[in-house]
Amino acid sequence: MTDKLTDRLIARIDELKNPSVVGLDTSFDYLPDDMKKPCKTLEDAAKAITEFNYRLIDKTFDIIPAVKVQVAYYEMYGVEGLKAFENTIRYASEKGLIVIGDVKRNDIGSTASCYSKAYLGSIKVNDNVFSPFPCDYITVNGYLGEDGIKPFVEDVVNFDKGIFVLVKTSNPSSGQLQNKKFEDGNTLFESMGKLVEQWGEPTVGKYGYSAVGAVVGATHPREAEILRQLMPHTLFLVPGYGAQGGTANDLKVCFDDNHRGAIVNSSRGIITAYKKSHAGMKFDDAARAAAIDMQQDLYKAIYC
Amino acid sequence: MTDKLTDRLIARIDELKNPSVVGLDTSFDYLPDDMKKPCKTLEDAAKAITEFNYRLIDKTFDIIPAVKVQVAYYEMYGVEGLKAFENTIRYASEKGLIVIGDVKRNDIGSTASCYSKAYLGSIKVNDNVFSPFPCDYITVNGYLGEDGIKPFVEDVVNFDKGIFVLVKTSNPSSGQLQNKKFEDGNTLFESMGKLVEQWGEPTVGKYGYSAVGAVVGATHPREAEILRQLMPHTLFLVPGYGAQGGTANDLKVCFDDNHRGAIVNSSRGIITAYKKSHAGMKFDDAARAAAIDMQQDLYKAIYC
Repeated sequence: MTDKLTDRLIARIDELKNPSVVGLDTSFDYLPDDMKKPCKTLEDAAKAITEFNYRLIDKTFDIIPAVKVQVAYYEMYGVEGLKAFENTIRYASEKGLIVIGDVKRNDIGSTASCYSKAYLGSIKVNDNVFSPFPCDYITVNGYLGEDGIKPFVEDVVNFDKGIFVLVKTSNPSSGQLQNKKFEDGNTLFESMGKLVEQWGEPTVGKYGYSAVGAVVGATHPREAEILRQLMPHTLFLVPGYGAQGGTANDLKVCFDDNHRGAIVNSSRGIITAYKKSHAGMKFDDAARAAAIDMQQDLYKAIYC
Repeated sequence: MTDKLTDRLIARIDELKNPSVVGLDTSFDYLPDDMKKPCKTLEDAAKAITEFNYRLIDKTFDIIPAVKVQVAYYEMYGVEGLKAFENTIRYASEKGLIVIGDVKRNDIGSTASCYSKAYLGSIKVNDNVFSPFPCDYITVNGYLGEDGIKPFVEDVVNFDKGIFVLVKTSNPSSGQLQNKKFEDGNTLFESMGKLVEQWGEPTVGKYGYSAVGAVVGATHPREAEILRQLMPHTLFLVPGYGAQGGTANDLKVCFDDNHRGAIVNSSRGIITAYKKSHAGMKFDDAARAAAIDMQQDLYKAIYC
């Protein structure tokens, strides 16, 4: 029997000693001037973004386990942008990377199943089967409750995929609703967390983690610690490291005693490193250098 | 001074005495056999869906104020599906319909602003400005709190657009989290509702309704009644009528004493009427007949 997705992800993290994921939130503005200058149309911009992503992937695929592709940065360029999204996720997959589509989709059951077909499952046109935007994992929003999540979980099981459900997000006002306490003593983020742990139960793999993960921001270490206790079988996708202010020390509470249980995203810190931490280098070399810095920073906090 | 979007929508509803919106949740499976049969690829399917939508719009644009286009049904067909989405919203706009993009987007502020550029505002490529998926209103999910909604509200003000924030959704398990009561006595849906009312305050128009609306399901009349009291300046987008089980009588609590305050969606009930309530008719004639039936059903409950 071959290993399931979450087991393969964890094994690869173990192998590289690198629980980090590069976020390809590639705004046109992030590109070097010589790539931007000739562009006039959405198509030009989307092609330049695709080229930028390919070069970033070429320079990092051997040292990172996964990429997270934030679809909003592609939808912003319309249909052409979504071609760039599709090409980017297909290219990353070909290079052996696990692909997380950061789409935060959500809807009532019948509609959620359409989203799930787009990103996790497949869609039929008469006898022909297609996978339009084939991701390994996607992020989803659970505000609608269980029947809005179920179609995703069904495809997770049927197609060996995974999801990360928003639990405690990294943004400053995430507490406005998520940290409010219910009469039963749980905050909203705790209630969501408990549901997520429960939804994942049937898919727990050999390392003890399920295919139904949670988004837990690095910027809220107190809440992350509570959630790690509450959700022992749930893998965390941790945004907020770097540009948003979360440190390796803040997020080490997301990991278990075996240095497992989370994968940490950095987007701007890696893909715009050539403008900041590694100014003077070519953008792709700078991204590799920043990815190595991140690995070492996380390694020290989590493994040592 | 020209009227703002929400004023124009309400004026058009008054004029037609029709607070209904046709939901173009056009799955390929909904198409008549003769349109489906020749299709082999995603491109074929997307083109057939576009043609189907155009004919539905042609037969209904004079009797309805707006359409709601559920993007999940287009994402399901990949890049080609999103072309169909774009073509459909542009065609509906050209016909004078107000277009609601049902996208339920949500993210941290910087990312939410990308979504907002895609659907409400505009995006620049060097000196050229584009509006990739130009909707009048979109739906959004407020689980992340205020700073995830702010970018949308800014574009609402700057581009004369609108949003509907999920408050109490129509699906069976919406109560799992939304109806849980916080220690302060408010349920989650009430807390969300109060925030939405507040976010809309600066945009209240001449009929007393703001450009920041709420999604309130027809399937939960008790909650809708509470929210109508709690959110006097908030326009409701009401899903769940028809196929999901909500009746005109259930949802009349969403309206004020002037028969205003809500717009009611029906998707499958209209676009698949040729298979059900108006079997035997051509799909577009059946849709028109079903749209007229809906108008009369709502009119009796709300205006009489």
